[in-house]
Amino acid sequence: MDHAWAIIMAGGSGTRFWPLSRRNKPKQLLALAGGERSLLAETVARIAPLVPPERVIVVTARHLADATRADLPAVPSRNVLAEPVGRNTAPCVGWAAAHIQRRDPDALVAVLAADHHITDEAAFLEVLGRALGAAREGHLVTVGVTPTRPETGYGYLEVGAPLDEGVHQALRFVEKPTRERAEEFLARGTFLWNSGMFFFRAAAARAAVQAHLPDLGFALDALDQAAAEGHEDEALERLYPTLPSVSFDHGVMERAARVAVVPGAFGWSDVGSWVTAWELAPKDARGNASTAPADVVFEDAAGCYVHAPPGKVVALVGVEDLVVVDTEDALLVMPRHRAQDVRAVVEALRARGRDERL
Amino acid sequence: MDHAWAIIMAGGSGTRFWPLSRRNKPKQLLALAGGERSLLAETVARIAPLVPPERVIVVTARHLADATRADLPAVPSRNVLAEPVGRNTAPCVGWAAAHIQRRDPDALVAVLAADHHITDEAAFLEVLGRALGAAREGHLVTVGVTPTRPETGYGYLEVGAPLDEGVHQALRFVEKPTRERAEEFLARGTFLWNSGMFFFRAAAARAAVQAHLPDLGFALDALDQAAAEGHEDEALERLYPTLPSVSFDHGVMERAARVAVVPGAFGWSDVGSWVTAWELAPKDARGNASTAPADVVFEDAAGCYVHAPPGKVVALVGVEDLVVVDTEDALLVMPRHRAQDVRAVVEALRARGRDERL
Repeated sequence: MDHAWAIIMAGGSGTRFWPLSRRNKPKQLLALAGGERSLLAETVARIAPLVPPERVIVVTARHLADATRADLPAVPSRNVLAEPVGRNTAPCVGWAAAHIQRRDPDALVAVLAADHHITDEAAFLEVLGRALGAAREGHLVTVGVTPTRPETGYGYLEVGAPLDEGVHQALRFVEKPTRERAEEFLARGTFLWNSGMFFFRAAAARAAVQAHLPDLGFALDALDQAAAEGHEDEALERLYPTLPSVSFDHGVMERAARVAVVPGAFGWSDVGSWVTAWELAPKDARGNASTAPADVVFEDAAGCYVHAPPGKVVALVGVEDLVVVDTEDALLVMPRHRAQDVRAVVEALRARGRDERL
Repeated sequence: MDHAWAIIMAGGSGTRFWPLSRRNKPKQLLALAGGERSLLAETVARIAPLVPPERVIVVTARHLADATRADLPAVPSRNVLAEPVGRNTAPCVGWAAAHIQRRDPDALVAVLAADHHITDEAAFLEVLGRALGAAREGHLVTVGVTPTRPETGYGYLEVGAPLDEGVHQALRFVEKPTRERAEEFLARGTFLWNSGMFFFRAAAARAAVQAHLPDLGFALDALDQAAAEGHEDEALERLYPTLPSVSFDHGVMERAARVAVVPGAFGWSDVGSWVTAWELAPKDARGNASTAPADVVFEDAAGCYVHAPPGKVVALVGVEDLVVVDTEDALLVMPRHRAQDVRAVVEALRARGRDERL
C-alpha cells in the first residue's frame, strides 16, 4: 500500500515581517496567523489527519535547522533536512523526494509551503485527498485556488478539460499578471491562483526532474547514492552549491506532460506581508486589530494593526490604517499600503551596518 | 547686602508627556529639551550665574522629593521643600518665601517654573537681573515674553507706562484668549505672554499675601512659627491641606499695587506637549527629529518626532507629522496635532485599571 508523505519547504528568510522576523527567526517560525503556533507548526498540524508527523519531511536552511526541529517536536529529527545553501525549489523538492523514495519507494508526496495560512481546514483536507488521489494515477498535480480578487501578487493557472471528479488538466502556468490581466482572469473564471503546492509519486517527480532538468537529476542521483552509502553530508557540501537555482514550477511542472490541477476554495493566504496579518486578525468595530487587545488603546483610530510584546501598553491616537510592530529592540510604524516597503528599512539598516537587528 | 534667591516650582504631574512622563517621573524630571539634563536641572544651571544652587529652593510634591533631590546634587537637601498636597501656586510661593525670609530677611526672590525651556540664556540672564533690580525697588515683578504668534495657550499681560529702563507698569493680566483676541494682542504690540515668573523681596511677597489672601497669610505665619520652633512637619501635615487652592497670579499679582513687568525675548517655551519637544529638537531636511538619529530610520517620512530608549531601532515608513514615543513598557503613536489628546489615553488606561503604567 502506498503512503502519503509531505515535503514542507521551510527555508524562507524574507524580510517582509521585520522587525518581528529576523534572519534566525523567519516568517514560518512566527505565529503570524493569530494563534499560539508558528505557521510551520500549523502546516504540520493541519495535514496530520492524512500525513502523520513521522512522514513529514521539512527542508530548511542550515542555520535554521535547530530552531525548526525545536518548533516541531512531533517530527523526527532526521526528517528535517538542512540545505547548505538555498538553490530555489527544484533542488529542494528533488532532494527531499529522493530521501522519501529511499525510505518508501511507493510514496505519494504532497509538497507544501511552510508559511501559508488556511482558514477552512476541512475543505483543504478534502482537496489534499483529491490531489493525492490524482497523484496516485500518475499525474503531477497542483492545487489552484479560486480567486476572490484580481490579485497581482500571485501566479495563475489556466484550467483545462476535466480528468476526473474535481481534477482538471492544467493548460498553462501564468506569471504574476498586470492588474488588467488579473481582472480578465477573474472575469473568465478559468484561471486559478497557483498555490505553489505539488502532489506526485516520488518516483514520478524524480523521473520528471530527470527528463526536464537532467543536470539536477544526475546530481540528485549522486547525492542519493552518497546518502545510501552513509556519507551524505560530505556530498551535500560538495554538490548542493553546484545545483541549478530554478523553481519546481518553472523547471519541472511547466514542462511536464500529464499535469493536473485540483481547484479548491479553503481560505488560502500566503501571509505575504503585515497586511495579511491584519486581514487574518479579529477586528473591532473600526477595523483595528492587535495581538493583545487588553494592552492596546485605540483612541479615535481605525484600520490599524498592532503587534507588540506581551504586556507592552500601546496607544494609537487619531491615526488610520497604520501598522505598528514593536519588539524588544526594534519598532516599525507605517501605513498598511506601504507594507511592501519594509524591505527598504532592512536595506537601510544593512547599509548602516546594523545587521544585528536584521 | 541683599542676596538673590530662587523658588523653583517643581510639583507638576501632568500627563501630556505620557508615556515618558509617569506619576513618579513627571515632565520637569525629564530631558525633554534634547540635552542630557532634566528641565529642572537645566533651570537650576541656567540661573547659576545670578543665583547659586545653595540659594535655590525647590518646592515639589512629597512623592517626588527623593527623585528631585537626586536630580539636583548641587542643591542642598533641605532646600527641597515637599508639599503634603498640591494647593496651586500661592501657598507654594508663600511657604517658600517664608522659608527664605527666615534664613535671609533681606532676600530678593525669583520664582521660576521647573519645566520651561529657554534658548537664549544670555538674554534671559539680562532680563533676570533687570527683574531682580525692579524687585529691589519694592515692586512685585513679572516677566512678559514678546509674543511671536497669536498663541491661545498662554495668558497675556498688558504693558503700561515705563517705570525704569526696560521695566514697565503692568496694567492687567488676561486669561488665555480666543484666537481672535490673540491676533488683536499680537497686532497691538502692548501685550506680552505671561511667563509665570515672579520677582520680589521675600518681605514684600509676604506682605502682599497678607493683604490679598489674609487666610493664607495667617496660616503661613503659623507654619513659619512652627518651623522656627522645629516642628514644621507636624504643622505642614495639619495646615497645608487647609490652605486655599489659588494661583499666585490670580490671588496676589492681579490684586497688588506696584506690579511691574519686564519685557523680554529669549526663546521661551513652556514645553507644553510633544509638539514642543519636536519644535526644540534639531531636524533633518524633511523635518524629522529623534532622540537617537543613529538608531532611527526615516524612510519617506516627514515632520515626525521619535523618542525611544537608547539602542532601540525605530523605523518610520511613509508617514507624516507623527509623534512616536516608545518606552520599555508603553508606546504612543499619534499625529502631532493630536498631542493634547494624550490625556484621553491616560484616562482610558486609568479606566482599565492600568495605573501601573501612568
